Amino acid sequence: MAPRVAASIVASGSELVRGDRQDRNGPFLAASLLALGVEPARITVVGDDPVELEAALREGLEHDLLVVSGGLGPTHDDRTVELLARAAGAGLRTDEQLATEIEEISRRVAARLNRPYADFEHGVRKQATIPDGATIVGLAGTAPALVLGLGERAAVALPGPPRELQALWPRVLETESLRRLLARAVAPQRRVLRFYGASESEVARALAAAGGDGDGVDVTICARNFEIHVDLFVQPGAESRAEELEAALSSSHLFSREEVATAELVLTLLRERGLTLATAESCTGGLVAARLTEVPGSSDVFAGAVVAYANEVKAAQLGVPDAVLRDHGAVSAETAEAMARGARERLGVDVAVSVTGIAGPDGGTAEKPVGLVFLHASGPMGERRLRFDFPGDRETIRGRAATAALHLVRRLVTESAQT
Amino acid sequence: MAPRVAASIVASGSELVRGDRQDRNGPFLAASLLALGVEPARITVVGDDPVELEAALREGLEHDLLVVSGGLGPTHDDRTVELLARAAGAGLRTDEQLATEIEEISRRVAARLNRPYADFEHGVRKQATIPDGATIVGLAGTAPALVLGLGERAAVALPGPPRELQALWPRVLETESLRRLLARAVAPQRRVLRFYGASESEVARALAAAGGDGDGVDVTICARNFEIHVDLFVQPGAESRAEELEAALSSSHLFSREEVATAELVLTLLRERGLTLATAESCTGGLVAARLTEVPGSSDVFAGAVVAYANEVKAAQLGVPDAVLRDHGAVSAETAEAMARGARERLGVDVAVSVTGIAGPDGGTAEKPVGLVFLHASGPMGERRLRFDFPGDRETIRGRAATAALHLVRRLVTESAQT
Repeated sequence: MAPRVAASIVASGSELVRGDRQDRNGPFLAASLLALGVEPARITVVGDDPVELEAALREGLEHDLLVVSGGLGPTHDDRTVELLARAAGAGLRTDEQLATEIEEISRRVAARLNRPYADFEHGVRKQATIPDGATIVGLAGTAPALVLGLGERAAVALPGPPRELQALWPRVLETESLRRLLARAVAPQRRVLRFYGASESEVARALAAAGGDGDGVDVTICARNFEIHVDLFVQPGAESRAEELEAALSSSHLFSREEVATAELVLTLLRERGLTLATAESCTGGLVAARLTEVPGSSDVFAGAVVAYANEVKAAQLGVPDAVLRDHGAVSAETAEAMARGARERLGVDVAVSVTGIAGPDGGTAEKPVGLVFLHASGPMGERRLRFDFPGDRETIRGRAATAALHLVRRLVTESAQT
Repeated sequence: MAPRVAASIVASGSELVRGDRQDRNGPFLAASLLALGVEPARITVVGDDPVELEAALREGLEHDLLVVSGGLGPTHDDRTVELLARAAGAGLRTDEQLATEIEEISRRVAARLNRPYADFEHGVRKQATIPDGATIVGLAGTAPALVLGLGERAAVALPGPPRELQALWPRVLETESLRRLLARAVAPQRRVLRFYGASESEVARALAAAGGDGDGVDVTICARNFEIHVDLFVQPGAESRAEELEAALSSSHLFSREEVATAELVLTLLRERGLTLATAESCTGGLVAARLTEVPGSSDVFAGAVVAYANEVKAAQLGVPDAVLRDHGAVSAETAEAMARGARERLGVDVAVSVTGIAGPDGGTAEKPVGLVFLHASGPMGERRLRFDFPGDRETIRGRAATAALHLVRRLVTESAQT
């Protein structure tokens, strides 16, 4: 098999290296490159320290492709261009056309902020100074994205803000340097398996029993809120090996072969059947509704939700009988059922799912401990009840309960059986 | 000022370097170390490739402290211990007591999964093999956390799963090697300024005008959903400089000097006044409620929410008059007001905030474009109305609208004026 084209990603930003913010550029670029057949070898996060940044850039330049984000601003802390040029052994030059474009933008900003342009002038000259031989790919605000061809290799500098980087990235891929590099890369085929109800260890063992990855198929296994995400990256020629592995891994817990959010999957299943949906949530506090509404176009299926945190709201908004709350408590299968049926009725929908539980850290008792969650899905095809004892902290319990609610609707709709 | 004790963090995991998952260990460890006075110099994310991992470990060992997470499992892909020992020039030895502990756990797992222990045996020996001179800090599942003293320096190996790493980290800090290292570190004082209603550029300019950071005060500025988060890290002796900078940055947009989530701040303000709260949400789809309920103990203030995605739900659950929806539309100041007043009444709370808008990408018109959002906060002290034209994609618009809703409640409660 041909040696893989490899990339090194450097994300610079003091808020990143200090842990104030999680780097999003590294994962975005890595996933994009992987799909194009370029292997992301490492992602390095550094701060403003020029020594660390330069070291990271030098290491990065040892790979076929270096992509660095951040540090393209007008202040003295912004050193990416200068250090990239130095590490690449290139000189610096000020591009007058670029300077004119950046000046135009800066003058408008200065006017809007009622400040003298002189304050911005030094920054403008600085941002128009680029490595010799670099191609300007576009502007994000006043920072130019740059591609520097280095023979068979290339270096790319992009702005730090994720939205700006993601907007400029497609243009970077169209440059001659990147096209030439990508031509040497072999894009693997990606196959996706999504499981629910199996443990990560079970899936890992099934994979190991089938011989594990290698032989042209790379497998990653990842658990999220009890969903198990398995990705197979298949090199050309390794398709039969991939088929073997897929067959070995497939089980009744497999719910999707697509890279689609579960909320979107659920909405699609309901839309295909002409059904509408609402949620009645207590401990998840609106998380299920928020995930469903993350999906553009959800409004033809999703009508709304009642977040019934207080018992009075469960009674008044969902019609949960006082007797049920009194006899079984807010966290019970009976209350979950009443919430789901109440949501169907009050919100005028075909299908409703409810979640009531104890997210913690307080509120647990010996009889009803933290992590105890009851879910109920109700629809024309029947009812589904679920009791879960989720391990984890508040955030984990809420996340797992929200995912469980989505899968309960999925199973109600696709399995049409009463339990 | 004494040279800073510096740390390098290595997070290993193929799902991380491929961008499937964002690394959480790097930011967690970096923030913890920073608060202890250790400077996080870099965070490097690598995959299973032993060449990259070993290179990252060798670079890491050039710093005072190396912390590596991941790769401590029983499979052949788990190479952290072996490569750390090699990079550190230490031998390997199998700790028999550790092997016994891990064997016990593995036998239980094997029994529960109905599999022969022989399948696990090799992994047990492997996980009990540690670098010469390493201290075992604890077990997470079957993986031991390790601390290797290296003279004035130290290396730490922790399991990859964030919850396990976070549980073991305090024990790592109590080991002799770490205590000795931390004794040389000077923990800076951290001061926090949170702004809303100012732009990031305005704050950055105020900082630059005051002389910028340095002189013992490091400043990070970070924008999140239009909140501006400013952190000042103050070295001993630089307190008066920090005071100067704080004074220069303070403005009417400053809403907090504490590292507290805005949702928690709002709940506290209401709790102090004996007030209850509900939300009525359309385009935010439950996000505001979800953020409020993320805060443990929110139930004494937060009663619930109505997510009224469909107009019928706005009418039926919140009592928004059909005439209002017909004459002004779902996205209007009038509907926002009716939703907020309706939530107060129907959910029986003192204060309610509503959000109705167009999150996109579809649904916008020339008259009501994507990003147009109306908010309304209603309470015994008065009413607050807000119209926003949020830039951004669906996720960004929803996030900014949710933050705006929380701040609208905050201002309603603290500013007690009708607008």
